[in-house]
Amino acid sequence: MTIESTSQLAWQWLEELAQCSETAEPDREGVTRLCATKEHTQALELLTGYMQQSGMTTHINNAGNLIGRYSSQTPNAKTLIFGSHQDTVPNGGKYDGILGVVLPIALVHYFNQQGTQLPYNIDVIAFSDEEGTRFQSTLLGSKAIAGTFEPSMLDSTDRDGVSLQQALTDFGCQPELIHDDAYSKEDVIGFVEVHIEQGPQLESAGLPVGVVSAITGIERHTLSIVGKAGHAGTVPMNARQDALVGAAQVISSFDALCKSDKDLVGVVGKISNFPNGVNVIPQQTDITIELRSPIDSKRVQAREQLLSQIDTTLNALNLNYTHSQTYEQQAVTCSEELSQRLVQSIESCGIASKVMFSGAGHDGLAMCELTDIAMLFVRCKDGVSHHPDESILQQDLLVSLQVLEHFCQSV
Amino acid sequence: MTIESTSQLAWQWLEELAQCSETAEPDREGVTRLCATKEHTQALELLTGYMQQSGMTTHINNAGNLIGRYSSQTPNAKTLIFGSHQDTVPNGGKYDGILGVVLPIALVHYFNQQGTQLPYNIDVIAFSDEEGTRFQSTLLGSKAIAGTFEPSMLDSTDRDGVSLQQALTDFGCQPELIHDDAYSKEDVIGFVEVHIEQGPQLESAGLPVGVVSAITGIERHTLSIVGKAGHAGTVPMNARQDALVGAAQVISSFDALCKSDKDLVGVVGKISNFPNGVNVIPQQTDITIELRSPIDSKRVQAREQLLSQIDTTLNALNLNYTHSQTYEQQAVTCSEELSQRLVQSIESCGIASKVMFSGAGHDGLAMCELTDIAMLFVRCKDGVSHHPDESILQQDLLVSLQVLEHFCQSV
Repeated sequence: MTIESTSQLAWQWLEELAQCSETAEPDREGVTRLCATKEHTQALELLTGYMQQSGMTTHINNAGNLIGRYSSQTPNAKTLIFGSHQDTVPNGGKYDGILGVVLPIALVHYFNQQGTQLPYNIDVIAFSDEEGTRFQSTLLGSKAIAGTFEPSMLDSTDRDGVSLQQALTDFGCQPELIHDDAYSKEDVIGFVEVHIEQGPQLESAGLPVGVVSAITGIERHTLSIVGKAGHAGTVPMNARQDALVGAAQVISSFDALCKSDKDLVGVVGKISNFPNGVNVIPQQTDITIELRSPIDSKRVQAREQLLSQIDTTLNALNLNYTHSQTYEQQAVTCSEELSQRLVQSIESCGIASKVMFSGAGHDGLAMCELTDIAMLFVRCKDGVSHHPDESILQQDLLVSLQVLEHFCQSV
Repeated sequence: MTIESTSQLAWQWLEELAQCSETAEPDREGVTRLCATKEHTQALELLTGYMQQSGMTTHINNAGNLIGRYSSQTPNAKTLIFGSHQDTVPNGGKYDGILGVVLPIALVHYFNQQGTQLPYNIDVIAFSDEEGTRFQSTLLGSKAIAGTFEPSMLDSTDRDGVSLQQALTDFGCQPELIHDDAYSKEDVIGFVEVHIEQGPQLESAGLPVGVVSAITGIERHTLSIVGKAGHAGTVPMNARQDALVGAAQVISSFDALCKSDKDLVGVVGKISNFPNGVNVIPQQTDITIELRSPIDSKRVQAREQLLSQIDTTLNALNLNYTHSQTYEQQAVTCSEELSQRLVQSIESCGIASKVMFSGAGHDGLAMCELTDIAMLFVRCKDGVSHHPDESILQQDLLVSLQVLEHFCQSV
């Protein structure tokens, strides 16, 4: 079987897996596949079949992760882990997550067909939950593997009041034994995740794949600006304390700040305004601010500038405010060695290599606690993801497979 | 009875009238008194009593306006009209509107006590509806008097589906005869309205009263800004089409535009943002824009600048938009002659006169179709109105009464 036909097989697998969805018509409505559900079971059944026909042994661990192993015959061989998450956001796409499970199985299928022996084991993991859609418990699967799973997370409940503990038990797992899922650091070579880019940069550059240098750090803030309501006709302009004008200036200057450095992105995604009447001066405007950077020091510096801008702007407008930082996650740097091998593998395929940071979070955020990580991004149409329109090219799947094949031969 | 004790009587009347309210505790919850309701009936009963004990004849016309006349003994005497609206916004104050009914009744009470005869009739009108709270039909009462009432307005309904036609009929009126309510232009000298300022200018200037030069013109717009939703981490800043950033820049530049000319005020009071998620680039942001000026040409010029700013700003950000102007009302200039007499009356009381424009709409907007208009503004605490905290000083009530007394002697 050629690598081309293996790639076609992977394409077919992706189509089959997309049918494991809560939605009646996944092609139109998108894929909804949550952790520890009937659709999760269906997907693992399919994946187990693919793994076994690729020469892998399989088992499902206590956190609901499916693990397939392509064993090395070398004594005391270490393990290279591939994988990504099987779960989706509600009405998500066919590729986010699952691509990073299917592609390495296809790779093993190819090796197995070719009779390729490797000096290390390949484990492919379908993480049970990364999106956190059902239990607001992001990175559940990869945290179990990395040994950083917090047992208190088992108490979190879905919207029907079912706890994660109960859901995993019903799924056939023994969640009280999740700590046994952890790999030993000394047994692992590294973790490689293939994932759609979820952004437009590869498409803009005309490239099928890219190598991730770092997974962005993220922080979030809430800002509540308090002015004074008043009649929109009778209060002179210079006597106004218009909270929305304050918010507008903060949003504009934050946008300019983020545009001033290619390593920053930021957004004010959410705004609410009170009393929100056409002829009333806004009394209170609340916004959220999210700031990301792959370089933590730049993010911290930008935050300081942001807070200083907020203070100056709102004081000048005679507005009060309360601010709080609600979330912070440090950036994770990918392994230079593994990333360099991905770059060389891409170039061996005759393709220009692009190194970029990931603006989204990924399982690597948990797996970096266990081992070196690397990520290969695959171009997606219009940069769209978390949406039924999520789409990739069949040709890019082949390229990705060829890159992984080179990569595995070079480790 | 001295003018001081008459002023105390007026204060007591205002307190009594505040109890004619849907709210259980008007002192705490504010006054809610809508057109053609039981509270309206209660208020008119009180007012009829005050008018009759002041030597006036009274009747309620087809639009639900109460009219009291202090008749002149001069043959073929013309009529000077005083008045304001009896209705309130929900949970409004004790003075907005009703002050302009009570104060001229108190004035007539004083004249009547003194045996003062005037060469003209004084009519005091309690307009049934100016706020339009119940039927979204602003200026109902004054339009009937001015002869500009549109019969189609009778079809408008309140939130319970009761039509204005029905409500007025239940109130004891014959709404099909509203056209008979109109005064003849040749019978009228002018219309004078006393009203709380609803803004902070008199308080800032330390003055009890002021004279209105013009009632502001108003226009309203809706602006819908359309960008592209996207992942807040993966879309590079320079590729974003963030609708909220567009709205922020429009709000900031509009605020600066309005602050550039003392004859302009403007506000973006209302904003809605979609999908309004903390980590999603805003796809669509809708705002309302309201612009006011007592000088129509300035308002029109400012509108042109606004629309040009919107176009330039949003094009630069690669955002689409749809705009529509939803409302326009021309400014109304007060009579120079009547206003000058108010100025002289204020100065006769030993008080500095301040001439200012009204940023809010008033019954004069309708009455100007009938006759010359003038307005006397009374200082209100912190510029607050349309709120239970609305408050005036007893001393300012006395000053207003003294000013009106001078004014009437000079006409």
